[in-house]
Amino acid sequence: MEKKLQTVRANNLKQKPEPDKLGFGKYFTDHMFVMDYEVDKGWYNPRITPYQPITLDPASMIFHYGQSVFEGLKAYRTEDDEILLFRPDKNMERMNRSNDRLSIPAIDEEQVLDYLIELIDLERDWVPNSEGTSLYIRPFIIATERNLRVAPAHSYKFLIILSPVGSYYPEGIHPVGIYVEDEFTRAVRGGTGTAKTGGNYSASYNAQEKASGNGQSQVLWLDALEKKYIEEVGSMNVFFKINGEVITPALSGSILEGITRMSIIEMLKDWGHTVVERKISIDEVFAAYDKGELEEVFGTGTAAVISPVGELQWKEKTIIINNRETGDLAKKLYNNITGIQTGKLADPYGWTIKVKEKVTKQGN
Amino acid sequence: MEKKLQTVRANNLKQKPEPDKLGFGKYFTDHMFVMDYEVDKGWYNPRITPYQPITLDPASMIFHYGQSVFEGLKAYRTEDDEILLFRPDKNMERMNRSNDRLSIPAIDEEQVLDYLIELIDLERDWVPNSEGTSLYIRPFIIATERNLRVAPAHSYKFLIILSPVGSYYPEGIHPVGIYVEDEFTRAVRGGTGTAKTGGNYSASYNAQEKASGNGQSQVLWLDALEKKYIEEVGSMNVFFKINGEVITPALSGSILEGITRMSIIEMLKDWGHTVVERKISIDEVFAAYDKGELEEVFGTGTAAVISPVGELQWKEKTIIINNRETGDLAKKLYNNITGIQTGKLADPYGWTIKVKEKVTKQGN
Repeated sequence: MEKKLQTVRANNLKQKPEPDKLGFGKYFTDHMFVMDYEVDKGWYNPRITPYQPITLDPASMIFHYGQSVFEGLKAYRTEDDEILLFRPDKNMERMNRSNDRLSIPAIDEEQVLDYLIELIDLERDWVPNSEGTSLYIRPFIIATERNLRVAPAHSYKFLIILSPVGSYYPEGIHPVGIYVEDEFTRAVRGGTGTAKTGGNYSASYNAQEKASGNGQSQVLWLDALEKKYIEEVGSMNVFFKINGEVITPALSGSILEGITRMSIIEMLKDWGHTVVERKISIDEVFAAYDKGELEEVFGTGTAAVISPVGELQWKEKTIIINNRETGDLAKKLYNNITGIQTGKLADPYGWTIKVKEKVTKQGN
Repeated sequence: MEKKLQTVRANNLKQKPEPDKLGFGKYFTDHMFVMDYEVDKGWYNPRITPYQPITLDPASMIFHYGQSVFEGLKAYRTEDDEILLFRPDKNMERMNRSNDRLSIPAIDEEQVLDYLIELIDLERDWVPNSEGTSLYIRPFIIATERNLRVAPAHSYKFLIILSPVGSYYPEGIHPVGIYVEDEFTRAVRGGTGTAKTGGNYSASYNAQEKASGNGQSQVLWLDALEKKYIEEVGSMNVFFKINGEVITPALSGSILEGITRMSIIEMLKDWGHTVVERKISIDEVFAAYDKGELEEVFGTGTAAVISPVGELQWKEKTIIINNRETGDLAKKLYNNITGIQTGKLADPYGWTIKVKEKVTKQGN
């Protein structure tokens, strides 16, 4: 089995977009990583190729039964022009947990991380350097077998594509409004909620439209069983600061195991805060508000890092949190996490990995 | 907007497979139907083309967020060499319900049915004529926009591909063993369970593997909330005959609205049977067995039409139903539905549509 990475370079490199026009996931770099899977070969033929379309038979399983997983992480440019990754090993671990849930064959986490690093190294000029920008990394696996039977595929493709992305907060971090969804469901115990698989995301669009219709920018998901306990915000995890204590929903089997979530819990504990992972109901949050004890609410995820919540609408009631301002704790967490990610602050936790420059530059 | 169907015929027609080698969804015909969607154009450019691969950017949304729907129906060849479709209007209606849940733009049901009929007419030689065989029809829609934002796509492709399929029961209709799943969940109220979307299917693979590991061929799904009420069997609806009465789970918001299910309910009522759509718990089924009142259990769906259940395993208990033989009611329903589908029996319900021959045959 050939496991050695083969590289075919693009003949013509693209013009890089202006840093203030990046947005999210609109532009892609010159190269991508691809490898294939067949039952009798395992994962094979790892290669870096020019960024290019995929050609698939219309009967390929990905088009019919949604057998797919993905990951999302970022590469950051430091002031010294080093390229840093933030806990990429955790993304590889989670990808294999997602693979397990979707009956997709496991990847070799260390090996794939090496391939990913080689790709980033080749594309290091694509990592933008403006405040808040980064290179978004999207590894994903799709079932490619050409067959309509309802069963795990016998062939897959694993790809990594890269997209330079703009600042989530071009005008500085600011709070968003959230609509508490009590009809649609994101995920349930025994379902696929902990996996990063496509179906979870398209399943959320109806609720997102409803939130927008209510003038709010994101959805807060309640548990499917009782429509009572808080699960996530949009595609982020969520934290509540109540009377000095930080509370986040415990991983219940239907909540995504966020790597930013995990990092924030570790950081808060390191700072001496009380952090509790437990069930928290929407009633409890509204009751805390009524008692004047709801100090801060914020979402956490790779895209925004920290997304403060300024307004929470549940049925006919809307509450304003912290006078619609970013709370001190959210601000401190944002500055510290992004500081570590971009190398501006020391990394006492060993979370960042430097992408060493080893690819020999060609021509131009 | 061009809505008129354009046809480009294949230069070389494929060899048709032997009827006893067909299997399910392995072979595809010479042509397919395609149309596109853009926000500013609506659905446009409907066309029949040679069956061919699809080329998509790796950032196409279908590969990341699972925004897709599909349908499944069959064309049958009668003894007089007519081609019949079974209630295809119901598939079009359901596809739009799925589209709504997945935030995919609606199709024009009548127009798409016309396109589908044109495609079947062109491919009529592909409808096999051996006992139990048919031409399986797979309409599907995928999100094609090249963008990684988590939101409904602005562009889509709708395709119809056709696959000649073998008999589900090459050795005659026979009962299967079923494993009652009490850990994994297929769907929940407020989720996507009533929609035919890819994510529902890949989410079921873990449980299917567990059923196989327990020596059973399919999964019986319980409700997500209490793990108590029966929902579906595999990807079929399910019926229980208890003490003369036929019971099937009521459409709860997490059960697929099967067209075979609907037809069987209508047929049973027409025959004077008592059919009740209501919640039915797994305890009730096992209690009925203990009292000697569980007469028949069968699944219903497009693939098998009727799939009798001979064995039901729930935790440590296994019950044998009707001495592992196909029940009289299951047999009668199977014979009558397949009789109407294949034109062997009269169609008093107006369920079948004849595909009139209007395409001018070229050459060979």
